[in-house]
Amino acid sequence: MRRVAIVGAGQTPYGEFPTLGVKELFAWAFKDMLHSVDKGIDPREIQLAYIGSLSAGSGFQLGQLAALLMGHVGLPHVPAIRVENACASGGFALYSAICAVASGKCDIALAGGIEKMRDVSSTKTKYWLGISGDTEFERLAGLTFAGIYALVASRYMHEFGLTREQLAKVAVKNHRHGAMNPKAQFRREITLEMAVAGAPVAYPLNIWDCCPTTDGAAVVLLCSEERAREFTDHPVYIIGYGAGTDYLAVQDRDCITSFKAARMAAQEAYKQAGVKPEDIDFAEVHDCFTIAEVVAYYDLGFCEKGEAGRLLDEEATSLGGRIPVNVSGGLKSKGHPIGATGCGQAYEVFNQLRGQAKNPERQIKNAEIGLSHNVGGSGGTATVFIYRREG
Amino acid sequence: MRRVAIVGAGQTPYGEFPTLGVKELFAWAFKDMLHSVDKGIDPREIQLAYIGSLSAGSGFQLGQLAALLMGHVGLPHVPAIRVENACASGGFALYSAICAVASGKCDIALAGGIEKMRDVSSTKTKYWLGISGDTEFERLAGLTFAGIYALVASRYMHEFGLTREQLAKVAVKNHRHGAMNPKAQFRREITLEMAVAGAPVAYPLNIWDCCPTTDGAAVVLLCSEERAREFTDHPVYIIGYGAGTDYLAVQDRDCITSFKAARMAAQEAYKQAGVKPEDIDFAEVHDCFTIAEVVAYYDLGFCEKGEAGRLLDEEATSLGGRIPVNVSGGLKSKGHPIGATGCGQAYEVFNQLRGQAKNPERQIKNAEIGLSHNVGGSGGTATVFIYRREG
Repeated sequence: MRRVAIVGAGQTPYGEFPTLGVKELFAWAFKDMLHSVDKGIDPREIQLAYIGSLSAGSGFQLGQLAALLMGHVGLPHVPAIRVENACASGGFALYSAICAVASGKCDIALAGGIEKMRDVSSTKTKYWLGISGDTEFERLAGLTFAGIYALVASRYMHEFGLTREQLAKVAVKNHRHGAMNPKAQFRREITLEMAVAGAPVAYPLNIWDCCPTTDGAAVVLLCSEERAREFTDHPVYIIGYGAGTDYLAVQDRDCITSFKAARMAAQEAYKQAGVKPEDIDFAEVHDCFTIAEVVAYYDLGFCEKGEAGRLLDEEATSLGGRIPVNVSGGLKSKGHPIGATGCGQAYEVFNQLRGQAKNPERQIKNAEIGLSHNVGGSGGTATVFIYRREG
Repeated sequence: MRRVAIVGAGQTPYGEFPTLGVKELFAWAFKDMLHSVDKGIDPREIQLAYIGSLSAGSGFQLGQLAALLMGHVGLPHVPAIRVENACASGGFALYSAICAVASGKCDIALAGGIEKMRDVSSTKTKYWLGISGDTEFERLAGLTFAGIYALVASRYMHEFGLTREQLAKVAVKNHRHGAMNPKAQFRREITLEMAVAGAPVAYPLNIWDCCPTTDGAAVVLLCSEERAREFTDHPVYIIGYGAGTDYLAVQDRDCITSFKAARMAAQEAYKQAGVKPEDIDFAEVHDCFTIAEVVAYYDLGFCEKGEAGRLLDEEATSLGGRIPVNVSGGLKSKGHPIGATGCGQAYEVFNQLRGQAKNPERQIKNAEIGLSHNVGGSGGTATVFIYRREG
């Protein structure tokens, strides 16, 4: 299996862009990626593109979105493939593009993701986002996405004694991190008092437990080891990549306080990378709701089962802690443009590992190994990537 | 790059299945595939699945369809990824699964496709299918899919003198082939007189120039060369696979009487396979409209530009001819369940190469090398695969 490196990455700011369409957003991220390539690249060198998006088909009624977007950036003849695995669409686009480069089918590939969520009205979003879970037993019965994660949170609190305050600490931490990230959607800190007392959404989750509705795009440029040095002396290698899947309907699972899909993906990635959870210097984690980050701590091996509350109390996952999580602000504060999220996480890890977090306040010092974790729906699918800086 | 073989393939009959949902259709094709594996396989050996579907997101509002379907066949934890490139979704699922096996990420992967088109009303289908073309300049301006292919046909007739009768010969041939295929949707022959005089759809295309609206599913089991003999002594190797992309809007292209995406895909596949068009014994070709097959003859190198009419007059592409095309009946008569089509073509090639076409009348004799060609929308994307029987 050939080794695959990231040699460039780009991302739009995440937020609300009422005057930009998907083409413009994608071009913005693409241009940002081109500028990030240390030694420059002729975009015509790109040989293949995988692009993740959920709303392309359902929200916007656009087929073959990947080809449309590549045409718009002047590369109409780069084979382009759209991938859809709900909120993990970007992660699976990255996974697929890595396989193509690793196989030798091509040397230079693009992985990207995009979503324009603010064009879907909030009533419709609530209904429509439910397509990422199970339709037959959940969505058509009226269960929303926040509702599913509320079930997970209630169960976690019941089983492990997680407190309302501990849950809120995820939001407080990620808003503190996001406030330092110029590309985050919410760049303001919140207090623990605010986070506990937010307007109710689905008990026990309140508005501060939920990620926002976001427009955005992100792209990552992948290259075979043989050619990586043509583009940079500081490539970031993807040393492990794993994928997992589970029943979409949570009723079918043995356990809802841990996501088996994420555990599978993590185990595969750790095994391939030859590293352990304690070797990870920092992680970008899928916190669509605060409880999702809590669940991820165990799924990624950062703590024992049920111990996430303690990790939060100790501030182990804050910037400066033992294993900083979501220094970007995470989905909670940076924003969650569904299909873009997996590639946006890779963008953050790439920049952190290369010491290019822009704002020195938010730069993790001397990090060598990073991890990203992207979950589809309520744990139906997941990808985990482990990255190492070399050179 | 590791070599990849097909060791099993399954397909539902194509047609109308009002009482079956996507889960049941998929399970039917999956079970058919299991029965096809000569030495048997424990389905739990499958390590990864790519599944193509267009309507999952837009027609049916189902996200993460691949995971849902794998859960239904008792494999909830096989990493499963949905791919959408319009009518080439199945071809790109196959392409992606091949890359994963070739890369060494896994040894055994499933590629599949599915669509339940008959659940979308015909008025809605006409509108909705337009998402496979360009939305901004075509669909929202009222151009339907048949309309786009009618433009291609008019131009082809104008430039190369293709006659209405020659165009109709594609339909007559494919219905003759389809009549012998027990899994085809339309199993009846039509006469040239009928084919010329059908009810108009979009000039010069009439009802007999258009493929039907179809429900169906198809799956292909891929295996690394190292392990192929565990499952069969008669593997079919995919010796070349190529992909191509073009502007979605036909107005942006230099030429509409040939699809550049398909030419790119074919060139890549021929080069990798180390074979020439004249080495191909038979082909399954994307004839969503009769004119699409006409265009494909040149794109695949079966004739010089504009010479397709002559090929049809000479019956070179009929069963028994120099290079039989669409012995299955093609999309025209076998049917076109959008996302399934690319994998259904692979199913036909696999069976023909192994002498298992069921009905001896339709078995191509002593074929060694087959080809399949799957086009997304009106040529926005395309895949071409070249297969060789070994053993």
